[in-house]
Amino acid sequence: MTDERLDRYAELAVRVGANVEEGQEVFLGGRIEHAPLIRALARASFRAGASYVDVLYTDQHIRRAMIELGPDSALTYSPPGLLARWKHMGEVKGASVGTTGEAEPNLLADLDGERVGGAQMKELAQESMRQLGEKLVNWTGIAYPNEGWAQQVFGEPDVERLWEAVAFCVRLDEEDPVAAWTDHMKRLKSRAAALNELGVDAIRFRGPGTDLTVGLSERSIFDAALFETSWGREHVPNMPTEEVFTTPHRDRTEGVIRSTRPLALLGQVVVGLELRFENGRIVSVAAEEGADVVRGQVDTDEGSHYLGELALVDGTSRVGQTGITFFDTLFDENATCHIAYGFGIPHSYDGEPGGEGYNVSTVHTDFMVGGPEVEVDAVTNDGRDVPILRQDVWQLET
Amino acid sequence: MTDERLDRYAELAVRVGANVEEGQEVFLGGRIEHAPLIRALARASFRAGASYVDVLYTDQHIRRAMIELGPDSALTYSPPGLLARWKHMGEVKGASVGTTGEAEPNLLADLDGERVGGAQMKELAQESMRQLGEKLVNWTGIAYPNEGWAQQVFGEPDVERLWEAVAFCVRLDEEDPVAAWTDHMKRLKSRAAALNELGVDAIRFRGPGTDLTVGLSERSIFDAALFETSWGREHVPNMPTEEVFTTPHRDRTEGVIRSTRPLALLGQVVVGLELRFENGRIVSVAAEEGADVVRGQVDTDEGSHYLGELALVDGTSRVGQTGITFFDTLFDENATCHIAYGFGIPHSYDGEPGGEGYNVSTVHTDFMVGGPEVEVDAVTNDGRDVPILRQDVWQLET
Repeated sequence: MTDERLDRYAELAVRVGANVEEGQEVFLGGRIEHAPLIRALARASFRAGASYVDVLYTDQHIRRAMIELGPDSALTYSPPGLLARWKHMGEVKGASVGTTGEAEPNLLADLDGERVGGAQMKELAQESMRQLGEKLVNWTGIAYPNEGWAQQVFGEPDVERLWEAVAFCVRLDEEDPVAAWTDHMKRLKSRAAALNELGVDAIRFRGPGTDLTVGLSERSIFDAALFETSWGREHVPNMPTEEVFTTPHRDRTEGVIRSTRPLALLGQVVVGLELRFENGRIVSVAAEEGADVVRGQVDTDEGSHYLGELALVDGTSRVGQTGITFFDTLFDENATCHIAYGFGIPHSYDGEPGGEGYNVSTVHTDFMVGGPEVEVDAVTNDGRDVPILRQDVWQLET
Repeated sequence: MTDERLDRYAELAVRVGANVEEGQEVFLGGRIEHAPLIRALARASFRAGASYVDVLYTDQHIRRAMIELGPDSALTYSPPGLLARWKHMGEVKGASVGTTGEAEPNLLADLDGERVGGAQMKELAQESMRQLGEKLVNWTGIAYPNEGWAQQVFGEPDVERLWEAVAFCVRLDEEDPVAAWTDHMKRLKSRAAALNELGVDAIRFRGPGTDLTVGLSERSIFDAALFETSWGREHVPNMPTEEVFTTPHRDRTEGVIRSTRPLALLGQVVVGLELRFENGRIVSVAAEEGADVVRGQVDTDEGSHYLGELALVDGTSRVGQTGITFFDTLFDENATCHIAYGFGIPHSYDGEPGGEGYNVSTVHTDFMVGGPEVEVDAVTNDGRDVPILRQDVWQLET
């Protein structure tokens, strides 16, 4: 890995992803193993005119110690200092960059799944949701290629190969990545516009083990991941992003869905997840592996039993093109269609979070449900059945 | 390094150093490079009954980015989240362990010294001083042997050799380190008692480049580093500790003193420091290397121009016996006599911090002034001149 590549990556995240403003406070967060990237982000932020860069390093080993040895009360505790940091970020309308890419992906694998799934800083998650709803922060998430993550992906610690895949997915291979991102977001936005024009009442997934209808609300909007803060600052919340998504109606999902890719969740891996829905609510959780961590998380609150997102991704996705399972949702969710249980996305809902049909929760977990064998159709408001995806090919004209 | 040794070390720091109570919140802080020790401390804390373990990882590279690229206002800014974390620690009467041992000791060496010396979270430092004065936290500091630090000490990254030296200094080589610490602290406490009984009015240092008289106040008390919190919880604030110390009178230091060992200060190294005092105040700062960082720090506030500590260490010191310059004040200050400019120590002052003769500041920097060539004498309240140290040998009966 060259420092030059790391610096270009950090510049892209700061300039296009979070789109840091002159004079803004910048909040960085990631694992201690991501230090080289976090440091590059700090330098890029100061170069972009940050008034201060506040870094929060996290460590899965500390989380492991807490889940393994700590009292129950520790699992849902929000340290007041951390909460104050978050509140301050909202108050000053800060910018934020978070990093993913687990260095020890199996570190929590042997712990009690329900305990792992239920461990969440509740008050902090609520504050985080509030800020998302009020659009107080321009933020982004990017991944840091590292040995442990490469080991999980390739079976060997080939960081260089992972870097190449990541660079391709985030368009760092382009001569002018900023221009490439502008074009890319335009394409996704026009796809979202076409869906909105169609007037979608529900999306139906059919495939092996899957027959699920996700009903939308009248306020559901299809959008792409180019967000705007409350004061009009654009930012790209994930890099990569390949999806158009909406916030479905909380109570209108029916049927059964089976995941099509492994889901790396809170330090465990979930394979062959099967969720059954009645009146929007998850009524059963099964999986070949890792059902407990999902059960633990679905039991977080009432809203965690309902969907908050539905996203459509086709075979032109750069992530999908790599053919790689990344075991990192930031990437895997952009390889194919996905849905998420937990909170709805404010940017794809016409109204305040918590309004008619909008699902409120402190969790939001995406999992992958698309692929060449899964047919995706729209049922329109006027009762038509319109194919959206066949064999991973986008069917709707944009 | 074996995990078993790391666990014993962490247990010692948690059980004897911070002396964590059942049900206490524990606050850990250290460099990201100290993660193996921080993790062991977290496990030891939970095993000791901690209700929660809050970890704050810091990164010198982020500090470097700020000093190099950030605006002036960033240098003295205290992030509100961090401030809230500290206040909370005091409110709940928490326990705390901090770690030292720079992994990249020369990282800030090429930066502007005055900027390095002046970079301090002011409000946070004030809060920290307040809590020290009110004795709200049972805390300790220990060091983490690592490659970069070993490289600085030995000229090669011989971590094992550094570990052996550290283990010897903190009595981890003893079969029962807890018992060894109990005996050791008793010895130091009786030495402090003998000095208090003597009735010391001033301490005089004479040696090459040095002729300094440090006057005490009527409220100055000699003590050893076995502290008690406001609610009576004992803790050992540094491991190792070999000193007996007092808080001198703010205005009664006269003469000149030359440091006898290099001082690692804020990412730079200060060699041959020479300070001149008039009426207690530092009136000139000179050094063979690194004068600027001292100047920058001495200019922090008015109190940083005055002494806040005087400490006596003899040749029986385990740190001194190693013959090693550690470039880490936690060790080097325990090899020989030292003094500190900046805030006074509440535990060695009979009264509230800020009372008659007590120096208040947001900094506290120890530097080494003792050695075989330096004679140390006490001038007693009744006008006698009593030898305390000759050739590093303790002269006073205990």
